[in-house]
Amino acid sequence: MAQSPDKSEAFVREGEISVELPAQTDAGVYFIGRIHTPWQTRKECPKNAGEARERGTVCTIELDPRWQPALKGLETCTHIILLYWMDRVQRDLLVQVPSTYGVGRGTFSLRSPVRPNPIAMSVVKLLKIEGNRLEVVGVDCLDGTPLIDLKPYFPSVDSIPDAVVGWHAGRNGPKD
Amino acid sequence: MAQSPDKSEAFVREGEISVELPAQTDAGVYFIGRIHTPWQTRKECPKNAGEARERGTVCTIELDPRWQPALKGLETCTHIILLYWMDRVQRDLLVQVPSTYGVGRGTFSLRSPVRPNPIAMSVVKLLKIEGNRLEVVGVDCLDGTPLIDLKPYFPSVDSIPDAVVGWHAGRNGPKD
Repeated sequence: MAQSPDKSEAFVREGEISVELPAQTDAGVYFIGRIHTPWQTRKECPKNAGEARERGTVCTIELDPRWQPALKGLETCTHIILLYWMDRVQRDLLVQVPSTYGVGRGTFSLRSPVRPNPIAMSVVKLLKIEGNRLEVVGVDCLDGTPLIDLKPYFPSVDSIPDAVVGWHAGRNGPKD
Repeated sequence: MAQSPDKSEAFVREGEISVELPAQTDAGVYFIGRIHTPWQTRKECPKNAGEARERGTVCTIELDPRWQPALKGLETCTHIILLYWMDRVQRDLLVQVPSTYGVGRGTFSLRSPVRPNPIAMSVVKLLKIEGNRLEVVGVDCLDGTPLIDLKPYFPSVDSIPDAVVGWHAGRNGPKD
């Protein structure tokens, strides 16, 4: 089971607010596979999903063979939704000061991996599926990040081209 | 902690494939709030996110007050991503035969709540935030469903209008 780091002043910048986490979790997730990328450190990673897409790096998802039959039909999708577990971050920040902005913002208004449940959602382009391996473009995470779900992307409900993130308007793409 | 029902023939239709779940989970999630909807049974629920949006029912998210400061800035968003925990479903089906289709499809090619990690992702319209309560349109879940994350929706990376789900092409919106 992934452990979050102990709450520590060392993890809280000026202007940030942390919280005492609940004594226990309420449900358990299975790691169903791993995402393989060329990036071993956060510094090497694309800054966000937009940059990942621009770079165009092909990354590989290796699904635990136990779940392989559940891929049936997914190969007909051009894009898929990945949910993955950011297993190397703290979970106790309510307000964060991303270095890109220098302004405190609520965790739920950011796509930062630091959140009570460190689950990232990315829409990626599916190139191919061979056995239990998928090749995708658009991942921005560290090598070895645990996968927790794959879903088909339905533009009819998932695509909202005119949605606005007011605090971010005029900038380019999400940054954490 | 949410328990999945015991694996049982009663839960497996003809053409479906189930799997033995791993002996233990790998990480824990906190339920950070609850989603309140008018629907007490699956029969009453909208069939999918498309139908939820058409109905236009305003639903309320009640965030645990512990996390309320993390909402700061989210009120500037027109649309948000909800991740929630489908706590009343089995988790062991690899291939499912949704009654809508009558054809077996892999769990990861469907948006069905039945999956190894029963996490649903919905893009909803944000109407307002007051204290720890959010009013949204587009939710299709049962009353009381546990919330696990809120994120801003960035069209620059989340909106792919021309994505295709091949097996579904020609139908209207996702159905489970």
